[in-house]
Amino acid sequence: MRYHKIPDETVRRLPIYLRGLMVSADQEREHISSQSLASFVGIEAWQIRKDLSYFGDFGTPGVGYNIYRLARGIKKTLRLDVIRRAALVGVGDLGSALLAYPGFRVYGLDIVAAFDIDPQKIGSTVNGVAIENAAQLDTLRRRDISLAIVAVPRDAAQATVDSLVAAGVKGILNFAPCKLVAARRIKVITLDIAMELARLPYYMPRAEQAAETVLKMDDG
Amino acid sequence: MRYHKIPDETVRRLPIYLRGLMVSADQEREHISSQSLASFVGIEAWQIRKDLSYFGDFGTPGVGYNIYRLARGIKKTLRLDVIRRAALVGVGDLGSALLAYPGFRVYGLDIVAAFDIDPQKIGSTVNGVAIENAAQLDTLRRRDISLAIVAVPRDAAQATVDSLVAAGVKGILNFAPCKLVAARRIKVITLDIAMELARLPYYMPRAEQAAETVLKMDDG
Repeated sequence: MRYHKIPDETVRRLPIYLRGLMVSADQEREHISSQSLASFVGIEAWQIRKDLSYFGDFGTPGVGYNIYRLARGIKKTLRLDVIRRAALVGVGDLGSALLAYPGFRVYGLDIVAAFDIDPQKIGSTVNGVAIENAAQLDTLRRRDISLAIVAVPRDAAQATVDSLVAAGVKGILNFAPCKLVAARRIKVITLDIAMELARLPYYMPRAEQAAETVLKMDDG
Repeated sequence: MRYHKIPDETVRRLPIYLRGLMVSADQEREHISSQSLASFVGIEAWQIRKDLSYFGDFGTPGVGYNIYRLARGIKKTLRLDVIRRAALVGVGDLGSALLAYPGFRVYGLDIVAAFDIDPQKIGSTVNGVAIENAAQLDTLRRRDISLAIVAVPRDAAQATVDSLVAAGVKGILNFAPCKLVAARRIKVITLDIAMELARLPYYMPRAEQAAETVLKMDDG
């Protein structure tokens, strides 16, 4: 009965811990302290302990967390403990890269269908996935695919989301650089790659700007 | 003298406002209210007003914000008002997609150099950018390139970052699924695409899980 009680910020950090635990497991360790995990993932130990307390404490004082048990617990909480089938819409440069990307399977996510509107692409295969006509998105419902990745141009993104929702899709990862509207029960995560890069210059040292501005200051 | 006083969370939202303003400007409007911008970008109006108050108020009561003036103000604050040259390291599927991605230029970011270790790729050209030998990353300093995008496999990511920092790079957008270590004066933003997708299943309706679990509940 504890579903939906975990804060969004914790849900955002749990996959980071999971990734850290999986890398630790590669190194054949059995236990890890919250301090070690903290330095591994770059999040403070108190925050990790607090986040993990939301769904049960798997740690033993003096020994730490059992890596496998904790990873399994996080996977179960995030509902990554079953393989989920996902569809990709938009097989341009980014879409093709996503089809080739091995990282999704680590989290139990499997891209099993891909759609495009380009007749030249429809019928061809990218990384083992056949590209289908985007007019056939409505087939997703009977194929039991409820996750989708949207990698279409901005102008086509909202119509794509509308079709996906009509086809029963419940979770969408959107790469189009725009805000999308969907019913509240649909979870849409937008990842605007250029926008992430756009945050960097703010943090860059001022010296570089000296020629362009009269403001000069030392910021270490 | 207001540099470095803006909270990280505000710096994260400013590009979202900028994107919203640019789309509004496409529609040939001159002013926008914080309420309209709010519904446009999906962030509450009070939050927008608070964020904008950090670097000066550009709004007129009853009229709203002048779109061009506000966009210019945000660009200046984020230091996106000059063209910045960036390098890409790792020209695999994702790297190639990033080279082809037009969205970076919107923010004044220009990928002018690309590096890989694969002799088959070195010397070829992707989207107008020649691929250079990754052993020559040290040339970035004299080419005045201080931003980099890392799209190499996880195992190579830390060494790549070390080389970039040694070459004078100050800001890094990392796509490798791992935490990277760099001096505090270097800003590293990691974007683990699979991890973003991994957050979705948690929010999906429980009905789907019914067959897998004894826990059943209504969550609207």
